[in-house]
Formats: sequence, structure tokens, C-alpha cells
Amino acid sequence: MTIARTLADFASGPVAPDARMQRFVGLSLFDWASVGLAGTGEPVAQAAREMALGGGASHGATLLGGGQAQAAQAALVNGATSHALDYDDTHFGHIGHPSVAVIPAALAIAETRPGEAGDLHAALAVGLEVACRVGAWVGRSHYEAGFHQTGTSGAFGATAAAGRMLRLDPARMAQALCLTATRAAGLKSQFGTMGKPLNAGFAAEVGVTSALLAQAGATSAPDAIEGAQGFGPTHAGSADVSALDGLGDAWVFPNISYKFHACCHGLHAMLEALREIRDEGLNAAEIESVTVRTHPRWLAVCNQPEPTTGLQAKFSYRLTAAMMLSGVDTAALDSYTDATCARSDLRALRDRVRVETDDGLSDSAAEVSVVASGQTHSTRHDILTPIDPALIERRLRDKSATLLGGAEAEALWRSVARIDEAEGVARLMACLGARPGQTLAEDG
Amino acid sequence: MTIARTLADFASGPVAPDARMQRFVGLSLFDWASVGLAGTGEPVAQAAREMALGGGASHGATLLGGGQAQAAQAALVNGATSHALDYDDTHFGHIGHPSVAVIPAALAIAETRPGEAGDLHAALAVGLEVACRVGAWVGRSHYEAGFHQTGTSGAFGATAAAGRMLRLDPARMAQALCLTATRAAGLKSQFGTMGKPLNAGFAAEVGVTSALLAQAGATSAPDAIEGAQGFGPTHAGSADVSALDGLGDAWVFPNISYKFHACCHGLHAMLEALREIRDEGLNAAEIESVTVRTHPRWLAVCNQPEPTTGLQAKFSYRLTAAMMLSGVDTAALDSYTDATCARSDLRALRDRVRVETDDGLSDSAAEVSVVASGQTHSTRHDILTPIDPALIERRLRDKSATLLGGAEAEALWRSVARIDEAEGVARLMACLGARPGQTLAEDG
Repeated sequence: MTIARTLADFASGPVAPDARMQRFVGLSLFDWASVGLAGTGEPVAQAAREMALGGGASHGATLLGGGQAQAAQAALVNGATSHALDYDDTHFGHIGHPSVAVIPAALAIAETRPGEAGDLHAALAVGLEVACRVGAWVGRSHYEAGFHQTGTSGAFGATAAAGRMLRLDPARMAQALCLTATRAAGLKSQFGTMGKPLNAGFAAEVGVTSALLAQAGATSAPDAIEGAQGFGPTHAGSADVSALDGLGDAWVFPNISYKFHACCHGLHAMLEALREIRDEGLNAAEIESVTVRTHPRWLAVCNQPEPTTGLQAKFSYRLTAAMMLSGVDTAALDSYTDATCARSDLRALRDRVRVETDDGLSDSAAEVSVVASGQTHSTRHDILTPIDPALIERRLRDKSATLLGGAEAEALWRSVARIDEAEGVARLMACLGARPGQTLAEDG
Repeated sequence: MTIARTLADFASGPVAPDARMQRFVGLSLFDWASVGLAGTGEPVAQAAREMALGGGASHGATLLGGGQAQAAQAALVNGATSHALDYDDTHFGHIGHPSVAVIPAALAIAETRPGEAGDLHAALAVGLEVACRVGAWVGRSHYEAGFHQTGTSGAFGATAAAGRMLRLDPARMAQALCLTATRAAGLKSQFGTMGKPLNAGFAAEVGVTSALLAQAGATSAPDAIEGAQGFGPTHAGSADVSALDGLGDAWVFPNISYKFHACCHGLHAMLEALREIRDEGLNAAEIESVTVRTHPRWLAVCNQPEPTTGLQAKFSYRLTAAMMLSGVDTAALDSYTDATCARSDLRALRDRVRVETDDGLSDSAAEVSVVASGQTHSTRHDILTPIDPALIERRLRDKSATLLGGAEAEALWRSVARIDEAEGVARLMACLGARPGQTLAEDG
């Protein structure tokens, strides 16, 4: 059986009820919508929206930030917009960000084909799962060669989600995935530019287009994913077949990590550990020293020792440690400013933070020691350690309230909870498209 | 200077008047339109059109075969449709088919942005040139690794053409090309499936989208084509800098080859040589033997010795030789049928054709010897030998008349000739979109 057919049988087949999976779909959808709405003012979001709205009259699917476009274009805009802040979810097995490619594709079909649309929860579940499975199948070798799984395996996940919304049978679903094999793209060399969030949008667009083409009868090479000169072999794929083990029986996507801090993911394990110590009631003024131990690979990524700009602050162990211990809200976008970098109390504490490396640590873990009033407080945190979903929910709702305001976050939460009701998609899209006080005219 | 900026300075800069270049742009546009209109009934064309027309109300750009869609979708449909018959032009330096990616992108912008549209001839010229230059820059290693230049370097050409139609300045043009670097895709493993023509359509879509995004202010990595883990390095590019020699001074795209026979390109040199001998007035019934000498690489491609189906006929030296010498029109699609394969006179002549290989021959050349009534007629033909453009024009007009009918071919020729007049694009698009007697309802 080909890889495409294996994935298609899963993506078009019965999805067993699984409470944990269902809950994580809802959490990802809510978090995706929160960071998407928060990203609509970013330059890449504005450029994508202008592209979609400028090409002549077109409607059907709602754009984050307002306006409507044809389904594939809306998927592109919403994928790029939701990845603009780099604040969306991450899956370490996938080596990328599954939701920003998958969710916009499913929503664009749900909204433009309401008559034929399948169950949105199931479509998102299979889409997120396929993105993670394909990401692991192409694996580390693919990433190291320069490919950006968010764009590449994301396109396969987006295709599965869009295809399930269209109720494609397994044969057509396999065709859709094989069409995606000749388009899936995205380079890591775009990191640090608008090309990174756009890679997510392009993946979402590919998903919509491949699914609609397959629905209309387009066909392609059946072994286009793994065959000779197929997608994997031409894109440095590791072809790790164990990545597909248990597909359909066990879900891997709920091992997803949400960002609770608006900065580089390399800082999060430290911030969570420090948060625990801070919540013991430590007074920042009494802190004598802080020691952070982290995997050496992060030093080249996020160890700006004395940041002076908001952007540098997002990549600084020392400053964000000081922010966390001083009660600055690290979930808020506007905490990362030049002014924060210049605050004398933060700079003083920052200078008492020492960063050490330990290659015995996993790159998802950090150990911290804080000496205050002669006492040493030590703990460690691994962001891959499963957290109680109820706790994740509370923190994502707090994050959303920080980003959007409490009332908007609450309205969004309610609309996500009711997504499977009649008019559920329309209600959600109304939330996403109508941001109070923000219109394209103002943005442009 | 980056590759993107080098290409952008050319594509956005002044285009010196060059009569030969201008003439070949016109010939390619005319041939593209002819094979595009002839391809609208193909299953891949119907699927692409259904995809574009089914996604909700949308208009602006004309689809080959009728209907309108948003610009990027129209480019996709028209690219796939025009490559559906595999009857479009080829450029051996590019290692692919430039027109099917470039022309649909330029037309979609010309039609949807009439107010800002630049000169179509110049846009097509720079687009075709960029496709050929990038195709040669990634080179044979890229093709051998499994990539389909029609899709990959075609996307860069489409971007240059669409960007010039939008009058992008060199800085924005370079951004557009660098956005294309993270999307340019297309696998040769799709050959023999609808994925092959779709690769052309996808490339055209990328061109439109990248150009519109850059116009709207999207930016990307400046060395995204040749830099570390850029497009070339991640896609087995040969990085042959000589491929850019003389850019802007000398045009390479006019070395383009047109197909005058509706069959595999490997047969064309033989058919042209036999045509010359046939036109000396040879009587097929008097032919005793035919010897064809060709490069050995073609034997695995197009040497079906005793074809029985129309598709096999398109890959048969022996049968197409018999067809040519018997006066069957090898330019007509409906000459390649099961019935043709079964004709006893053709089979008898076919069995007197012998195919020999000679690795001293170029793979674009063939030598033929025909013995008739005791006399030997020998000649050779190389399809890369430049032909008088006036002769190309006559043969393309004959080909168009064969495909579309004389009146339609004539109307199309006139509309292409007047493309730079006011309303020229609108007139051409009316020709392309309104095929008498064919509506989507009939196709679907």
C-alpha cells in the first residue's frame, strides 16, 4: 500500500471517538484563532490581505482581519496571518507548526461548501494528525537539508483536512495527497522574513486546491510521496516508516505544545520553571543570583545577553528571566519593547542571571536555581511533559484575554465550543472576520 | 549582487527593441493559445476548470474553455489546460516548456489589472527569458534529481512576467522572485499523469501570487535563490552562473522549439526529415524500405514497434514514419487512433521501417534513408537548427487551423497580432474564453 493510500484510508475513514483528541482539537482551534486575530495588524498579514482583496471582486471565505476571498486565497491569508506572530502551537515530532497550515484549509472549505461539509472536528483531527505523521516521516534529515515542515508536511495535513471537509472517498483523498506531493514546498532559509509565515499560508492554499482538484476528478502519480523521485526522495526525506505506526489507533498530534510566552520557544522551559519559583512568593528585589541550565543548541538561538530592542528581548534568556521574576506578563506582545529592555530594575536583575549549558539535558528542558535571601530554589521543567488539559485550557484562555481582551476572548471561546452546532462555522467566522475597530482601510 | 536582483534588474528594466525577440513572443503566444484552446476538453482541463468555478462566485480572469475566476486560479487553470496535450513549445536550454507557465500568469494580470498593466509583449519576453535562464542555471542536475523545470523555473518566469505586468520596480521584483524561491515546485515523477500539466498551472499560479504579494509589500530572504539552503542548493541546482551570461543583451528564449506533430518530441526530427523526402513527390506504395537513425536514448522513450492504440502510436518511430510517408496529417490530434494503428497499408509500410541507433548523433537529430523504386533518398534533420521565422509562422498557422478550424485559427492570429492595441487583451481573452459550442455544462 502506498503512503498516500495509507494516509487516505485514515483521513477518509471512521474516526473513533476519543475525548482527549477532541479536547486538543478544540484547544488548538481556540489558540489558533487567538493568535490569528492578534496577528492581523502585522505587515505580512496586511500584505496577504491586500493581495487577496485587490484581485477583483471575490467572496466566499472570511479573512482574518476582515474581508472575504475565494477559498484557496483565504486559506493562504489566514495561514500567513496566524503564523505572523510566531505564537502558534508547535509539535516536536512534526518539527513544525501544524495548526497554521491545517486549520485555515479546513475552515475555508467549511465556509464555502456548507452544504457538503463534513464534521469540522474530525477534519481538523485527521489534518493535524497527517501533518504530524508526514513531518515525522520526512524527519530530521528533511529539516536539516533546509525544508520547513510547517510548509511541506503542513501541506499534506491541510490536504487531509480540506479533503475530509469535502467528504472525499479514500481513492480521491489519495489523489489529493499525491497532487500535494508535487507542490509541497517551503524553505527554512526564509526564517526571519515574511517568507516564514507565508510558508504556512502557502501550505494551507495547497491543501484547499489539491482537495478541490481531486474532488473535480484530477489524478496524479499514486506513489508520488515515497516512489522513485517522489516527494520524500527528492526532499531529503528520512522515509522513517515507524512514523506511521499505529495510525488511526493512537493519536500523536495531542502531544502538541502551546506557547504561553510571546517569545522564542527555546526560552519557554526556563520561563515555566521560573514561573513555578516565582509563584512560591519570591520578591524580585531579594534575588541574589539566577542560574539557568539549557541544551547548548539554544545558545546560538536565544541567548542575547544584553538586549536593547523588543525583538532582541524575545531571544534573551537573561532578560526574559528577569521579566518573569519581576512579574512582567511574558504572554503579552507589548511586554517585549525597547522600554522593557531599558528598565533599570530589569537590567539589574538580568545581570545577575547566568546561563550554562548541559548537553545531558533534552532541548525541551531547562533547570533553574534562584538564590534569594540566602535560600536556593531549584526546579526543572520540560515543555514536553504532558500537562493537565484543564490547566492548558485556563492558560490559553488567559493568553487569549491578554492578546484580545477579556470579552473578545470569551466570545471566541464560546464560538469554538459551539463549532459543531448548526451555524457554528458561520458564528466562528464572524468572530474571526469582524474585529472591532479594525478595517482594511485603517490597516492599509 | 544576488541572482534575484540580477534577474529583477533585467525583468523590470528597459527592454531594447529586438525584432526577432518580438516575433518569437508573438509566435509563442499564438501557439500557446492554439494548443490551449485545443486542450480545453481534456480531463485535466475540465477538472481544473471545475475546481476554479466551483468555489463560489468569483470573476475577473478568463479561463480557457469558458468562465472566469480570480487571477491566480485562472493562471492555474490556463497553465494546466495549455499543457494538457503536451503540444506546446519546448526550450532545450530551459529543459522544459516555458510558455505554459509564463503566458497564463501575464494574461491573468493583464486582464484583471487593466489600469496598471504594462506592455504585454515586454512582460512575456522577460518572463520567457527568465524561465529559460533559471532553467539553465539549475540545469541538468536539477532535472536528473527529479524536478520538472516546467514547474520550477517556470514559476520564476511566471513571476517575472506577472511582476512586469504590475510594473514592479526592481526591488519589489526581486522580492517576488525570492517569494517564488520558497514555493517553486514540480516533480517529474508526475509524468504520465495529470500532475504533469498541473505542474505548469501551479507554476503560473505561483507567479501571479508572488507578484501580487510583492506589490502589496511582502518581503522575503534576499538570497533565497542561491543562498545557503536557498532554492538552488535545496533542489540539486547546478548553479551554473554562465546561464546568466549576456542577460539583457542577448535573448536565449527565441531558440524555442515548436511542435509541429502531435506526438512525442523524440519523433520530430525523423518526421521533419521524412517530410522533406515525401515532399519530393514520393509514392508511399513504391517504398521498399525506410531506415531511421536516432540517438539511443530515444529507444526507451518512443520506439513502440507495433502500436495498437492511439496513445502508443504517439510513441512509435515505425508507425509515425509510415503515417508521414502516406500523407496522414501528423499535426492532427485525431490522426493518432486505434483505427490508424489498424490500417493495413500503414502496417505494411510500418513493417518496412527499421530503427537504428547512433550515439554520434545529437538527441535532437535524426537521419533517414528511404529506398523507393530502386532509388535511395537520404537526409537528416536537427530540430535545433534555426528555421526561418516566416516558415515557422506558416507551419504554426497550419497547425492551429488543423486543431481549431481555419476560421478560428485566423481570428486567433489576428487577435494576437493586435495584442498591444487598446482592448487588445480583452479581444484575445474573448477568443480564449468563448469556444463555440463548448460550455462547462457540456463538459461536466
